[in-house]
Amino acid sequence: MPTKRPTPADSTTNHPTHGYIGDKSRYLARMKRIEGQARGVHRMIDEDTYCIDILTQISALTKALEGVALGLLDDHLKHCVLDAAAQGGDEAQTKLQEASAAIARLVKS
Amino acid sequence: MPTKRPTPADSTTNHPTHGYIGDKSRYLARMKRIEGQARGVHRMIDEDTYCIDILTQISALTKALEGVALGLLDDHLKHCVLDAAAQGGDEAQTKLQEASAAIARLVKS
Amino acid sequence: MPTKRPTPADSTTNHPTHGYIGDKSRYLARMKRIEGQARGVHRMIDEDTYCIDILTQISALTKALEGVALGLLDDHLKHCVLDAAAQGGDEAQTKLQEASAAIARLVKS
Amino acid sequence: MPTKRPTPADSTTNHPTHGYIGDKSRYLARMKRIEGQARGVHRMIDEDTYCIDILTQISALTKALEGVALGLLDDHLKHCVLDAAAQGGDEAQTKLQEASAAIARLVKS
Repeated sequence: MPTKRPTPADSTTNHPTHGYIGDKSRYLARMKRIEGQARGVHRMIDEDTYCIDILTQISALTKALEGVALGLLDDHLKHCVLDAAAQGGDEAQTKLQEASAAIARLVKS
Repeated sequence: MPTKRPTPADSTTNHPTHGYIGDKSRYLARMKRIEGQARGVHRMIDEDTYCIDILTQISALTKALEGVALGLLDDHLKHCVLDAAAQGGDEAQTKLQEASAAIARLVKS
Repeated sequence: MPTKRPTPADSTTNHPTHGYIGDKSRYLARMKRIEGQARGVHRMIDEDTYCIDILTQISALTKALEGVALGLLDDHLKHCVLDAAAQGGDEAQTKLQEASAAIARLVKS
Repeated sequence: MPTKRPTPADSTTNHPTHGYIGDKSRYLARMKRIEGQARGVHRMIDEDTYCIDILTQISALTKALEGVALGLLDDHLKHCVLDAAAQGGDEAQTKLQEASAAIARLVKS
């Protein structure tokens, strides 16, 4: 299963363990929208938009990012972590250690 | 770096209550960087980067956004809200109501 | 500003700017409930309750605390900070500096 | 320190999947401290302590709770979820579904 990817084409076929692949286009679309929201906040600041309205946009942007992060994490647990767990051994513990650290960063950010 | 405003003076004279004006270029630079970070996350997903590494980037992005929001809020309180408070009357209460609602959204997002 | 309590009374008369005084009994009741929720989580752990159910209770407790914090902050802004702002001078800036730092701690916690 | 269980053995043998058992006394001590912090906030409100100081305590309390939640979640993933994953089947998916929902509640709370 592990591959380093020779061609872009492979990227969808050769990384079956990256859980989000199935929804990849949806995640890409969400990140495009988030990038647009960031650009929107930039423009609001540039145009001296009322501060509170900018803060509202930033809260929306943060929530959108949080949604992407929770989705990726869920996919990761259901794929990488479950796969590692099924195989057993240290790998599963390592994966969970990583996941717990990522969860802690999300909760604190 | 094209700008929409004819003279810098206008931006300050026309919106004297927008507290962030002083640091405007710094805020614009921070949002440019955040936009770049969002683009980076998009690319990481597109290139099937390991999920945990993407989550790390998203946490960094969220913290950067939080920093911008707290900065804008601080400026807003120190300028708009203080000004309104100095004049007294309902305006001050309205501004604080707005600010409190924005703070609640930030805390919850 | 009128005060509610006769003897330890000084504590209210000497701190007339403590905005939450009006709702004090409501805040005290909310904190009693939160204390009870903390005790409930302790009991759940002691009784080996299923982990996910404990986490649900902790999330509820955190939200309840957040509600108290946002309420106190709102009261603080509307009373202490507005009063200081009305008087003008450095005091207002100091109060806002404090408030901004408290908001940042809340957003990050 | 009265306890509800007759013998320590029972608590470990009857709930072998509750991952936090090993650290149970530490979690109980942390929750006792949190309960004391909640009581402290109650007292601060009752004694009309300066609002900002109360908010500082609430932020500390929230962080302490967050620490307990992240610890329990980590234990849960490393025990219940890994065990379910090792056995395979729907149980593992169900456990992860639950865990993801709990993580989302934590991130949003």
